[in-house]
Amino acid sequence: MTATPTRSPAKRADAQRSIAAILAAAVECLGRNPDASVSEIAKAAGVGRVTLYGHFPNRVDLVDAAFARAVEEGHAALSEVDLEGDPRAAMARLIESSWLLVEQSRSLLLAAQAVLPPGRIRALHAGPAERVQRLIERGQAEDLFRTDLPTSWLVGIMHSVMHSAADEINAGGLVPDQAAPFITATLLAAFTPPGHRTPA
Amino acid sequence: MTATPTRSPAKRADAQRSIAAILAAAVECLGRNPDASVSEIAKAAGVGRVTLYGHFPNRVDLVDAAFARAVEEGHAALSEVDLEGDPRAAMARLIESSWLLVEQSRSLLLAAQAVLPPGRIRALHAGPAERVQRLIERGQAEDLFRTDLPTSWLVGIMHSVMHSAADEINAGGLVPDQAAPFITATLLAAFTPPGHRTPA
Repeated sequence: MTATPTRSPAKRADAQRSIAAILAAAVECLGRNPDASVSEIAKAAGVGRVTLYGHFPNRVDLVDAAFARAVEEGHAALSEVDLEGDPRAAMARLIESSWLLVEQSRSLLLAAQAVLPPGRIRALHAGPAERVQRLIERGQAEDLFRTDLPTSWLVGIMHSVMHSAADEINAGGLVPDQAAPFITATLLAAFTPPGHRTPA
Repeated sequence: MTATPTRSPAKRADAQRSIAAILAAAVECLGRNPDASVSEIAKAAGVGRVTLYGHFPNRVDLVDAAFARAVEEGHAALSEVDLEGDPRAAMARLIESSWLLVEQSRSLLLAAQAVLPPGRIRALHAGPAERVQRLIERGQAEDLFRTDLPTSWLVGIMHSVMHSAADEINAGGLVPDQAAPFITATLLAAFTPPGHRTPA
C-alpha cells in the first residue's frame, strides 16, 4: 500500500479517493489494453498526471498495485466456492471459478507479466495460493492427492498451468471455453498419488 | 536473423564475426546477470556500442537473439538423448536433459521473461517443442499417454512446468537438485490416460 503522510483528515480522504479512482481506472484500462499508458489511466481516473505520480511514482508501481487489487478482489470472490465434499470435485469447482477470473484478467495479467518478475506475480497470489494449499492438504489427508511431492510444489503447478492456459489463448493456440476442462483434467491427473488410477 | 546489406565479402565476414561475438557475449553476460546492460555486453564482445547497435537496434532485440541462440544450442544438444523404448522412460530422460539446460539458463530465461512476451518465449521453443510433440504422439499411439487432451496442450504443459520450476528456484522455493524428479513425477502423472494408473 501507498504510505499516506500526515495530513488533515479531509486531505487524507481526498488522497484515498484519488488512489481508489486511479486503481479502478488502471484495472479497467489495463484490462482492455495491456500497454495502456499512465496518461490514459490518469485521464480515465479523472486525475492529473502529477496527482497520479504522487501516489504511484512509475508505471511499474501502478501495474503492480492494479494487479494486486484484481487478485485481491478475485480472492474475495472465490470465498463463495463450495470446497466441501470430495476434494477432487471441490478442486474442479475451484479451478473453474479461478479460471473465469484469470480469463477475465488476461489483458491485465499480460500487463503484469510485461513488467513484473514471475516471482513477484507469484507473491501477489499468496492469498489464493493459501486456499489451494488447504484444499490440497485435505485431499492428501484423504489419500486422494499425492504426498510424494511437496504441497507447495502442487500449488505452484496449479498456478503455472492456469497462467499457461492464458498465455496459450493470447498466442491463439487455445479457445477460452476449452481451457477450464483442460486445466481440470491435467491437474487432477497430476495430483493423483503414484500407482493410483487417474479420474476417468 | 539480422539482415546483412550488400557489402564486400570481407566486410560481410567481419559483420558475421561481430554478430557471433556479440551473441556469445550476450549469452554469457545475461547468463550471469539477467540485467546485464548493452554496454557490458559490447565490452565483453570486444566491440563498440555503435557496432553492437548496428546489428541489434535495442536491448530487446539482443536479448531475443541471445535467448534464441541458447535455445537452438540446447535443442542441438538434446538430439543426443535416447528417445527409443518405453515412451515414459524416454520422456523421463528428455525431461532430465532438458531441465539441465533450463537450469543452466535460468538467468538468461529471467532476462528473456523480463522483456519478451510469454508467447514469444514459446515461439522460440518451436524446435524443442516439436521433439516433445513427436515423443508424446508415440506414447499416445501406444496408449501410455492420454489422448483426451490435444498433444499441443500437453507440450505446453511440459513447457510451463519446467519454466515454473525455474521461477520457483529463482524465488527460493525450490532447490535445483529436486527439480528434475519433481517435474518428471508431475508430467508423467499429468500425461496418464483417464482411469489408468499413474507410474508408481
